[in-house]
Amino acid sequence: MAWSLDQLSRISGGETCGDKESLIIGLCSSEKPIKNCLAFSLNEKISRNLDQAGCFVISKEKPLKGICHPDPKLAFSSIVNEIKPNYEKPKKLISEKAHISKSAKIDQDVEIGPFVFIGEDVKISKGTEIHAFSFIGNKCKIGSFCKIMPHAVIMDNCNLGDKCLIGPSSVVGNSGFNIHKTDKEIFRMPHIGGVQIQKNATIGALNTIDGGLIDPTDIGKNVKTDSQVHIAHNVNLGDNALIAAKSGIAGSSKIKENFIAGGRVGVSDHTKIGKNVTAGVGSMIISDIEDDSTVLGYPARAKKITLSIWASLKKLPVWIKKKK
Amino acid sequence: MAWSLDQLSRISGGETCGDKESLIIGLCSSEKPIKNCLAFSLNEKISRNLDQAGCFVISKEKPLKGICHPDPKLAFSSIVNEIKPNYEKPKKLISEKAHISKSAKIDQDVEIGPFVFIGEDVKISKGTEIHAFSFIGNKCKIGSFCKIMPHAVIMDNCNLGDKCLIGPSSVVGNSGFNIHKTDKEIFRMPHIGGVQIQKNATIGALNTIDGGLIDPTDIGKNVKTDSQVHIAHNVNLGDNALIAAKSGIAGSSKIKENFIAGGRVGVSDHTKIGKNVTAGVGSMIISDIEDDSTVLGYPARAKKITLSIWASLKKLPVWIKKKK
Amino acid sequence: MAWSLDQLSRISGGETCGDKESLIIGLCSSEKPIKNCLAFSLNEKISRNLDQAGCFVISKEKPLKGICHPDPKLAFSSIVNEIKPNYEKPKKLISEKAHISKSAKIDQDVEIGPFVFIGEDVKISKGTEIHAFSFIGNKCKIGSFCKIMPHAVIMDNCNLGDKCLIGPSSVVGNSGFNIHKTDKEIFRMPHIGGVQIQKNATIGALNTIDGGLIDPTDIGKNVKTDSQVHIAHNVNLGDNALIAAKSGIAGSSKIKENFIAGGRVGVSDHTKIGKNVTAGVGSMIISDIEDDSTVLGYPARAKKITLSIWASLKKLPVWIKKKK
Repeated sequence: MAWSLDQLSRISGGETCGDKESLIIGLCSSEKPIKNCLAFSLNEKISRNLDQAGCFVISKEKPLKGICHPDPKLAFSSIVNEIKPNYEKPKKLISEKAHISKSAKIDQDVEIGPFVFIGEDVKISKGTEIHAFSFIGNKCKIGSFCKIMPHAVIMDNCNLGDKCLIGPSSVVGNSGFNIHKTDKEIFRMPHIGGVQIQKNATIGALNTIDGGLIDPTDIGKNVKTDSQVHIAHNVNLGDNALIAAKSGIAGSSKIKENFIAGGRVGVSDHTKIGKNVTAGVGSMIISDIEDDSTVLGYPARAKKITLSIWASLKKLPVWIKKKK
Repeated sequence: MAWSLDQLSRISGGETCGDKESLIIGLCSSEKPIKNCLAFSLNEKISRNLDQAGCFVISKEKPLKGICHPDPKLAFSSIVNEIKPNYEKPKKLISEKAHISKSAKIDQDVEIGPFVFIGEDVKISKGTEIHAFSFIGNKCKIGSFCKIMPHAVIMDNCNLGDKCLIGPSSVVGNSGFNIHKTDKEIFRMPHIGGVQIQKNATIGALNTIDGGLIDPTDIGKNVKTDSQVHIAHNVNLGDNALIAAKSGIAGSSKIKENFIAGGRVGVSDHTKIGKNVTAGVGSMIISDIEDDSTVLGYPARAKKITLSIWASLKKLPVWIKKKK
Repeated sequence: MAWSLDQLSRISGGETCGDKESLIIGLCSSEKPIKNCLAFSLNEKISRNLDQAGCFVISKEKPLKGICHPDPKLAFSSIVNEIKPNYEKPKKLISEKAHISKSAKIDQDVEIGPFVFIGEDVKISKGTEIHAFSFIGNKCKIGSFCKIMPHAVIMDNCNLGDKCLIGPSSVVGNSGFNIHKTDKEIFRMPHIGGVQIQKNATIGALNTIDGGLIDPTDIGKNVKTDSQVHIAHNVNLGDNALIAAKSGIAGSSKIKENFIAGGRVGVSDHTKIGKNVTAGVGSMIISDIEDDSTVLGYPARAKKITLSIWASLKKLPVWIKKKK
């Protein structure tokens, strides 16, 4: 396939630079430029290299040939979404190979793939896609225009707002890990709170978001989680949180809006984290954190302090010997 | 729905306080009390607040209206288990959409959902539930009254005792990670030991419990694991272990009874851990641990020592400057 | 079943010791020797114990009865691969319960289990096994003699070389975690690069290997990953890497050949790691690493330095008190 430069420029909402009728034959990255393909660039030096390689460029500054746009990443994303191959929808939106309970209420334009299981008293709103091998438990409510990716498991009593995405092989609403011991037995307490996911949240692959004991676990609007994230029972995760891969948040922690967790961040149970907090890669948060803080390390402390400790540690062994 | 106070009180085995005929319309948490709903409380101050909010209360001390019980969590769990909605079992316990090998032996009252795969020479004992999308490999033996949750994968040669639960999307019995290099190739050694899980063990969501090389990996009685736990080949995990989320135990480690691992605990391979050991959140255990120890940190040391190191570290940078 | 000693000896390519016609009734481990079973041993003392227990032994030195072989692990693996029970292949290699798009091209001798989903424009080469519940997305190319284990998910645009294995419930090619914020919205950028896995790579259970933004994420030849490993978008992981359980490599990191990661190792995004680097258990790599290094700790430093810091830390609290 090929597109005219002007066609892609209009999709992106940017300004065309060079011959509008030029043919673009594909997309490429700025690391591996390909002649007559379109790349996006975030700095001027890279743009020049791309120009020299015969690429079309999306950049803030006007490229020789390409698209000038104040937000190259946004422009690029718009183009990808428009031109990526879209397979025709099946004629029957609801696969005959799906297992759907009679009490389920499926709105119009809902797409249900083969090998899908939908439990009792489920409601699914319009335009939502339920992909192959998904499991939707009893009494779940799925908003409109959601995407439930292949092999996702949503257990009983979960609610999803509109435009949510649940990544492949993630498990939402499994019983929380509240263990109770008596003289006679050790058992996992029954959890009935389920999970509430607010609109526009995007859950990554192989996540676990456990169901609450009585009240639901609550995932805020616009939350984005990476792969292999764990969020325990009765956590409240504020709006706009970005949680990178392998992070985990233990039970009943309350986190305000705009939390950013680098990869493999841990949060202890019953921890309170203020708004606009950022935790660096590998941090283990074991005490409450105030608004607008940046933390790092195990245990997590103010980033500046941890960095100075790390610098001091380097000298410690030599120094201890010397001073003895 | 609604229940009389006395009805729920009898289920819990507690003592009724207030009007026996009072109608309770649901359950609620002590954080979000709802009038005429039932909450459990673990301290007197909370109980008073709940009373004031018009709640029914399960507590150790006699509430104004509610249930007096020496173990409120147990009482609450009993009530939930009794009153939570239970959907009617399908008329045919074994779904026609399941794929079951002819050589499989299925005992009475076994429930097998749609899209289940059951391999050759499998034995499943009475009263066990195999939920949708589960995979049971060849030669597995599943005890009685087990629950195999949706999307669980149990590979060849695994044995489960009675009353075990395997969480959704967990993988039990995948080949262990024993890599062998020769001049010609690098390969993963074939593992034939499988996994033995003792009775009453509850495995969480998205766990991996790898199969042993020759002898089985062994998970003790009453073990409870949280989400995203990994237990490697040939580990022996003693009875009653509680393993919180994201913890991992590497190959051939031997752990005695009553091990408690906070979230994200790691145990190196070939490590010996005594009985009654507790590892704090984030600990990385890289050497053997004696009976009755509490450890913390990376590397894990006695908790007291790690806490004093953490306290000292805070002063280190300032102090190093001063003493130069 | 039973085998003559000579029969197994010939399979292993070793030298028979003792009566060639002896009957061996099974395999056993050196920890739990069983009379008339075959164990492998890596040191002379263990061999003697096994001899005394009436075992047949594979060892470097000549055992009383058994097999002498320069590489006992290789010999043992060859024997296991030969004698482990192999269930008859189904008469129809391609299950009628699979869902296969009409545009998919399936080569000869490909085995496709029940409840498999194969998308549009997929190519699968000869001798490959696609096990139950696997999902193969649009435009994927799967090489010859691969094994796609139960519940594996391979999203659109992924390429696998010959003889690759994708472990159970792993997700390959899910969209990378590139989040972009504008004034109006927060969104995950669309990823079209997919994943390229080179020949002979073996991916463990519950792994996530995310798809690249434009260029593919690239997994080298002979790479072996353990359970619950995460490899982010646009990582290049060099040939022969061994990645132990729960390790994670963040976006766009470039790692040269022969990388060895102990359990739970983390690598920050955009990190460059040279060839022949080894990272000890629990390491968190947050800066570039030179060729032939061994690192340890959080933050990861040269192993020697980290070990000396750990030793010094033990003395720190007492020492700070003393010197005050």
